[in-house]
Amino acid sequence: MTVSDTSATESMAAITSGGSAVSTGPITGSRKVHLPGPRPELSVPMREVRLSNGGRVVLYDTSGPYTDPAATVDVRRGLPALRADSVMRRGDVEAYDGRPVGAADDGRRGGGGAQPHSRFAGPARRPLRARAGRAVTQLAYARRGVITDEMAFVAVREGLPADLVRDEVAAGRAVIPANVNHPEAEPMAIGRAFLVKVNANLGNSAVTSSIEAEVDKMVWATRWGADTVMDLSTGRDIHTTRAWVLRNSSVPVGTVPIYQALEKVNGKAEDLSWEVYRDTVIEQCEQGVDYMTVHAGVLLRFVPLTAARKTGIVSRGGSILAAWCLAHHEENFLYTHFAELCEILRSYDVTYSLGDGLRPGCIADANDEAQLAELATLGELGRVARAHDVQVIIEGPGHVPMHKIRENVELQQRLCDEAPFYTLGPLTTDIAPGYDHITSAIGAAMIGWYGTAMLCYVTPKEHLGLPDRDDVKAGVIAYKIAAHAADLAKGHPRAQEWDDAVSEARFDFRWEDQFHLALDPDTARSFHDETLPAAPAKTAHFCSMCGPHFCSMRISQDVRRYAADHGLQDEQALRVGMAEKAAEFSAGGGRIYVPVADA
Amino acid sequence: MTVSDTSATESMAAITSGGSAVSTGPITGSRKVHLPGPRPELSVPMREVRLSNGGRVVLYDTSGPYTDPAATVDVRRGLPALRADSVMRRGDVEAYDGRPVGAADDGRRGGGGAQPHSRFAGPARRPLRARAGRAVTQLAYARRGVITDEMAFVAVREGLPADLVRDEVAAGRAVIPANVNHPEAEPMAIGRAFLVKVNANLGNSAVTSSIEAEVDKMVWATRWGADTVMDLSTGRDIHTTRAWVLRNSSVPVGTVPIYQALEKVNGKAEDLSWEVYRDTVIEQCEQGVDYMTVHAGVLLRFVPLTAARKTGIVSRGGSILAAWCLAHHEENFLYTHFAELCEILRSYDVTYSLGDGLRPGCIADANDEAQLAELATLGELGRVARAHDVQVIIEGPGHVPMHKIRENVELQQRLCDEAPFYTLGPLTTDIAPGYDHITSAIGAAMIGWYGTAMLCYVTPKEHLGLPDRDDVKAGVIAYKIAAHAADLAKGHPRAQEWDDAVSEARFDFRWEDQFHLALDPDTARSFHDETLPAAPAKTAHFCSMCGPHFCSMRISQDVRRYAADHGLQDEQALRVGMAEKAAEFSAGGGRIYVPVADA
Repeated sequence: MTVSDTSATESMAAITSGGSAVSTGPITGSRKVHLPGPRPELSVPMREVRLSNGGRVVLYDTSGPYTDPAATVDVRRGLPALRADSVMRRGDVEAYDGRPVGAADDGRRGGGGAQPHSRFAGPARRPLRARAGRAVTQLAYARRGVITDEMAFVAVREGLPADLVRDEVAAGRAVIPANVNHPEAEPMAIGRAFLVKVNANLGNSAVTSSIEAEVDKMVWATRWGADTVMDLSTGRDIHTTRAWVLRNSSVPVGTVPIYQALEKVNGKAEDLSWEVYRDTVIEQCEQGVDYMTVHAGVLLRFVPLTAARKTGIVSRGGSILAAWCLAHHEENFLYTHFAELCEILRSYDVTYSLGDGLRPGCIADANDEAQLAELATLGELGRVARAHDVQVIIEGPGHVPMHKIRENVELQQRLCDEAPFYTLGPLTTDIAPGYDHITSAIGAAMIGWYGTAMLCYVTPKEHLGLPDRDDVKAGVIAYKIAAHAADLAKGHPRAQEWDDAVSEARFDFRWEDQFHLALDPDTARSFHDETLPAAPAKTAHFCSMCGPHFCSMRISQDVRRYAADHGLQDEQALRVGMAEKAAEFSAGGGRIYVPVADA
Repeated sequence: MTVSDTSATESMAAITSGGSAVSTGPITGSRKVHLPGPRPELSVPMREVRLSNGGRVVLYDTSGPYTDPAATVDVRRGLPALRADSVMRRGDVEAYDGRPVGAADDGRRGGGGAQPHSRFAGPARRPLRARAGRAVTQLAYARRGVITDEMAFVAVREGLPADLVRDEVAAGRAVIPANVNHPEAEPMAIGRAFLVKVNANLGNSAVTSSIEAEVDKMVWATRWGADTVMDLSTGRDIHTTRAWVLRNSSVPVGTVPIYQALEKVNGKAEDLSWEVYRDTVIEQCEQGVDYMTVHAGVLLRFVPLTAARKTGIVSRGGSILAAWCLAHHEENFLYTHFAELCEILRSYDVTYSLGDGLRPGCIADANDEAQLAELATLGELGRVARAHDVQVIIEGPGHVPMHKIRENVELQQRLCDEAPFYTLGPLTTDIAPGYDHITSAIGAAMIGWYGTAMLCYVTPKEHLGLPDRDDVKAGVIAYKIAAHAADLAKGHPRAQEWDDAVSEARFDFRWEDQFHLALDPDTARSFHDETLPAAPAKTAHFCSMCGPHFCSMRISQDVRRYAADHGLQDEQALRVGMAEKAAEFSAGGGRIYVPVADA
């Protein structure tokens, strides 16, 4: 059940009279609890499900304060700065006067254009950056042996030892994307030692969408389990949209800065330059973007490798940079200026998501020379980044048939020194536009099992249009399924507890518990109620699919009860028991549906 | 677009005034074509998609005459008896007076109860069976080296040599479920050398559904790609529902006879007997059921192995037989009478689907001792069946985490002499009731890749209620995706043609072709049209997701065209070309959406 918070509604209404409200209120049947964290303001939120048999299940929770009735949500003012003290107490950052917004960038056509009516109204904060000579990245702290508040938070959240978190980050096998300018986010880790994570892409485009719709989609995506969001806006108001998303996001936010840079040069790829890109990156670092996709591996010499492909280059960033490379016939400026870029990201603790600009766009192009050449380059760039203390994840495909998925992970882990892998799907077939959340959930589950740390969701609208709210939910749910299936297959120590709780509720006909434990309690309940809407059905020992005679769960329970009561060896008791049961059923009229009151 | 055929509507209306019509009319953008088959009446129907660039793609088609505008559909009279001549010409069958219907069975409460208003109105046919001393199974013919019309039809349909079909059937690695009393069905093969098949379960229950709804669901399921259907009815009118389904089904129909047998004994498992079951099987053989699930592997000594499970026995058939075994403390009568049952099935060429009554019902119970003990027994029974010339497939789980899936196939192939494997899913996690078509499509795709021949679909209503029409479609589409992803990964020689055609249409911005080639053209088009409904968008070179500047497909095409026109080595030409292109774009006003008329 989705409850609209009144204050949130009013705030959003202040943005635009036609605006939509963000969704608040608890996930049905769950309540927000907090485990002790490293600091009072950094207690660790979890989703608790209390069961009708007295048990409780505590689940990882990405939904932020929006599902906490005790929290006040005002999207115009943003979320509390949870990590601000943690960042300041380390003594490594300084506040400074950031780039003026609304001048160089926003004055240009399409460059951002913050509108007076949509300016963010939260407390003004000067941006933070590392003091001269200081490293503020989680990687730098981990390498020095420090367990940061962020690492301690992650440890509680994942139920794992804090020194494991530190060691994984130090080794570059995990990242904690946590820009010093995004103190609102609840720390989380991306790495194969942890739960598989899910990213949801948001972002308006030139054709449709709006700021308030993107904020709502962000809240909606995290409600259903998105661990990070990427704001891929390409239309107007890029800067302002991002401000609203960041200030209201309790999960890390990623971007692809080349999109905004391209807007600044009016969409002409050949007019891009390192300077325009650099300024865009700094602007986004100051805003608080936690990780950035950088297509620095699209090298001039790789572009011809895509000429014989069925679908060429399908990454937007990859296409832009390939066009730039060919237009100038120079090496990709992201590659040639990579060390400079590292220094910038290092100052804010922005994590690299090294983009796979040459990822395959169809089954036929999977694992080809272009893709693998770029992957090796990403490995090389990852080493450069980590030498600068910058955290790194590596992006991957795309479209891959099942038998070629494992090779992707094995190569990536080897070529990229076990840096976390972050893949889009992959889609395992191209024949089902409209259902690519399913074609790709198959690939996502498998690649997660093989060791991919984060899965970028695909919605039913992939290839066809911009996802709406329903598509966002469908994509997130499909990917939470894939991620959890992967956690089970990887043997994550706590993953199966959730399945077992659902299965036990199912076997015991505790329908309410089954609904409440579901990934999507609302849908589970509504599907059940379509055919058996009466309240007593919730406690009757059958569902509409089988009817009472056929319900195997019931029969099986009866068998077990008799075996327990009479001893399994006692054949006589069993026979008598079963005969009694049959007689009882006949005596009861053999009715197909027995109301609970009668039973 | 679904078109209701008038005659069908009227016929269904004759059943009940509130009845629904079956769906007829071509799949959007496809037309029915026929390849030459072994006999004039056995030409092989295919789904042809003609492309706007002059190309054509011919796809496997399960939808029967319902999608053929040239065919007359009257569900009251049933489909043409395509295989009647093929069966008769072999000279091995005889017609006889079958069991009277409406007497012993239907007179009993819940036993079938054919109602006058719903009696099937097609031509009366006496049932056929093998003459004394003759074997009429496809297995028997194949072993004698005969390529039957059914095998020849399958060969054309799959695009494979007819002797391969015969050899696979002869070896027991494939089956062609084709009861001599179901001449309406188009022959198809289930085996790992062939395309992975999908089964859709239908069937009313005691709580809901009706005959006409089940016929409609059958037509609807095959429209979207179901290769077989199982009628799992457990409520009233079992016999009559099955008559309507069989006479109107162009795909093989499976059943679980124990369900009807249980109805005959008023739902009391302990009142079941071999005689009641045998008579039920014969009744169904005479009607034309093509394959039957028989839980002959649920042995008395295996039942205690389920006592420590989280969810006990979840197969309905398995539960019934376990209850019978414990109530009588005798061995399962299906096991003790298995040779007799073989002789019956042999007379009609009914294929065994040896049921996994002890399959796991949750992640925790996967691959346990109970499951694997039964699997070994099914292997033993399969050898007995084939010794009687009876075709055999073996059923499998259920609920299995990804890392335990491969073991299922490897054990089944070894223990069951490579008999075709037929699995339900498996679901790869238990946490997502309401989305089990997705949790299980993941497992289904993987188990299909590993060698499973047929996948039994799971709908979004699994565990929650009876699937409606929308659920049936959602389940079939999810499973066609899984099956096709498996075909790709297995390297089926023709599978990738379909993906390539979609990908090429996508790269060329042939939107209409992309829709028409889609597994579900209607959904693909409607999703696209939600954000770009104007007709010109169908030929414009961008979609609403990216906008023109960002559409990587477009940029990539431009790059390739310049490279081709000017030679990739000619850097100067490339630079000039890109500069010209940029100038052209600016001169055109840099408009975000350029109508085709202007372009």
